[in-house]
Amino acid sequence: MLPAYDLVYETYGTLNAAKSNAILVCHALSGHHHVAGMYADQPKSLGWWDNLIGPGRPLDTERFFVVGVNNLGGCHGSTGPSSPNPATSKPWGADFPVVTVDDWVQAQAQLADFLGIASWAAVVGGSLGGMQALQWAIDLPQRIRHALVIAAAPKLTAQNIAFNDVARQAIITDPDFHGGHFYEHATVPRRGLRLARMLGHITYLSDDQMGEKFGRVLRNDTGAYSFGYGVEFEIESYLRAQGDKFAGFFDANTYLLMTKALDYFDPAHRHDGDLAAALKPAVAKFLVVSFTTDWRFAPSRSREIVNALLKNDQDVSYAEVASSFGHDSFLLEEPQYHAVLRAYLGRIGL
Amino acid sequence: MLPAYDLVYETYGTLNAAKSNAILVCHALSGHHHVAGMYADQPKSLGWWDNLIGPGRPLDTERFFVVGVNNLGGCHGSTGPSSPNPATSKPWGADFPVVTVDDWVQAQAQLADFLGIASWAAVVGGSLGGMQALQWAIDLPQRIRHALVIAAAPKLTAQNIAFNDVARQAIITDPDFHGGHFYEHATVPRRGLRLARMLGHITYLSDDQMGEKFGRVLRNDTGAYSFGYGVEFEIESYLRAQGDKFAGFFDANTYLLMTKALDYFDPAHRHDGDLAAALKPAVAKFLVVSFTTDWRFAPSRSREIVNALLKNDQDVSYAEVASSFGHDSFLLEEPQYHAVLRAYLGRIGL
Repeated sequence: MLPAYDLVYETYGTLNAAKSNAILVCHALSGHHHVAGMYADQPKSLGWWDNLIGPGRPLDTERFFVVGVNNLGGCHGSTGPSSPNPATSKPWGADFPVVTVDDWVQAQAQLADFLGIASWAAVVGGSLGGMQALQWAIDLPQRIRHALVIAAAPKLTAQNIAFNDVARQAIITDPDFHGGHFYEHATVPRRGLRLARMLGHITYLSDDQMGEKFGRVLRNDTGAYSFGYGVEFEIESYLRAQGDKFAGFFDANTYLLMTKALDYFDPAHRHDGDLAAALKPAVAKFLVVSFTTDWRFAPSRSREIVNALLKNDQDVSYAEVASSFGHDSFLLEEPQYHAVLRAYLGRIGL
Repeated sequence: MLPAYDLVYETYGTLNAAKSNAILVCHALSGHHHVAGMYADQPKSLGWWDNLIGPGRPLDTERFFVVGVNNLGGCHGSTGPSSPNPATSKPWGADFPVVTVDDWVQAQAQLADFLGIASWAAVVGGSLGGMQALQWAIDLPQRIRHALVIAAAPKLTAQNIAFNDVARQAIITDPDFHGGHFYEHATVPRRGLRLARMLGHITYLSDDQMGEKFGRVLRNDTGAYSFGYGVEFEIESYLRAQGDKFAGFFDANTYLLMTKALDYFDPAHRHDGDLAAALKPAVAKFLVVSFTTDWRFAPSRSREIVNALLKNDQDVSYAEVASSFGHDSFLLEEPQYHAVLRAYLGRIGL
């Protein structure tokens, strides 16, 4: 359906002569190719995984050649719903094909070809990014030596899908969505995107952390209730600000597409639900990481992956990291988490 | 602010001569006064707690005089945002005062006066209804002999408030909300109400139950994905139908008001967060019930109430019922749950 497409990517470090030191970083729902560092004169442009990637960091750019890519369907430079549809010269909008994790792996493989990388030393990702690492190991086993699957799950639960569907319905029923063709109406379904992000954000944080960080603290420090519907509790202020910020830059059609890729991800689907059977082709070694307070993709979901690999007698290490920061932990500088990645990647032979 | 108000109520059974057998049933967010039975020629009008209330049932109407009431601010007949504001003759809309659990207790006490009930044998409620039972025991200790606090919490967490705020923002940012005065525009913020209900519904069910009931089953039984944004998974179909139904009859301003009453509920607030101090005036006996898979108000939240009562050496029984149905368990015919209520109420002296 797509006659051609662009992928925007960034690289960090130097590809060695054997081209054996390349690591692909796959992004999650709202991520992109700019994984580390900052652009000249843009001090706020720090990459989303900068705490993990750089000289001397766990993904050590003095040793590895790290590649960040914006996925097909994204809204940070790669071809996506806001790109022109060659057939109409207008933005694709809702006509952009719904892509899947499999499609992303194929597109990323074309990028690897272009860069001359026959095999990744590792494919690394958290959340939806971890699902891509898992899919790489299944679909292109000869081209990935290590899969680092962080804060992920082998498929979404009904509850996960339910949250995604509320977010999608918020966007789709926003009158400014215009059936996905809002670009032509010079508007953006800002209300829907804002709600989608507010809701998503609740599922990224742990209940405990929200309690510690915000509790029932009021914005108004008199401690008196306002008896109105304006912003009142700190948590409301925080969530609304997150929603407003996100709605200001993220593409609504990309949001729909990314959540749908999440819903569809289920490598065991073609094997009657048998995850071990789905993972059988993999020859990569695996590191699976989960976080104790992650209730979006709880440790039990990561253990499903680990158990399927063990059933196949495949090479897997598993770390269940004690962290109070919920699903978002995979983005944070949690010492035990970083130590696990540093140790694992330090042992990778090039 | 309200010069006068109506409360609509229903009664079941017969008030005894001593007027000592009355039970008040308090409703939760979307409930009302019609707690049991059905209206003549309306076979679909079964009361929302009919499985619990009736002859021979745990709230046995052959023994008790059961009173159901629609709370002030509701949308089932009591004075609320859709009622005319005497000052303008137009619906109150957003100008209806935000009422609290304390206000409801005072209004319910006026109903008790009207019915000649000096003291309730019991005040019973689940979720927000349980909070009213708790508040009764604190505010009017001489007028309540037993408080049955089911699937409740002594106050909302930041996460609870966050979910409520996303729901409120969905309603308030719906263009059809018109600042709460949609009645005058002959419209209803249906999109926002639908999203609010879809989201709320996710928090009423358990993850396990959703998995068992819906899993990843597709509406289309070919097992093939549609690669579109229409209804696809069974869970989407179910949630959207729940949202559509709710948006067809519930008042948006009442929804805002009820969620705000939830957010504000915090009897320990006036006692520097000391729940035991807040509960000190109570002389009622307590039955506290929680459900193992309720993640909206988890058993640990009920135990906060129990522990505060124990600290005061107050009379409390506690049942943590194994149920797979999440928060909604309090509405269902769970045998162990019903057995606990039946046994407790059976021992109440009249």
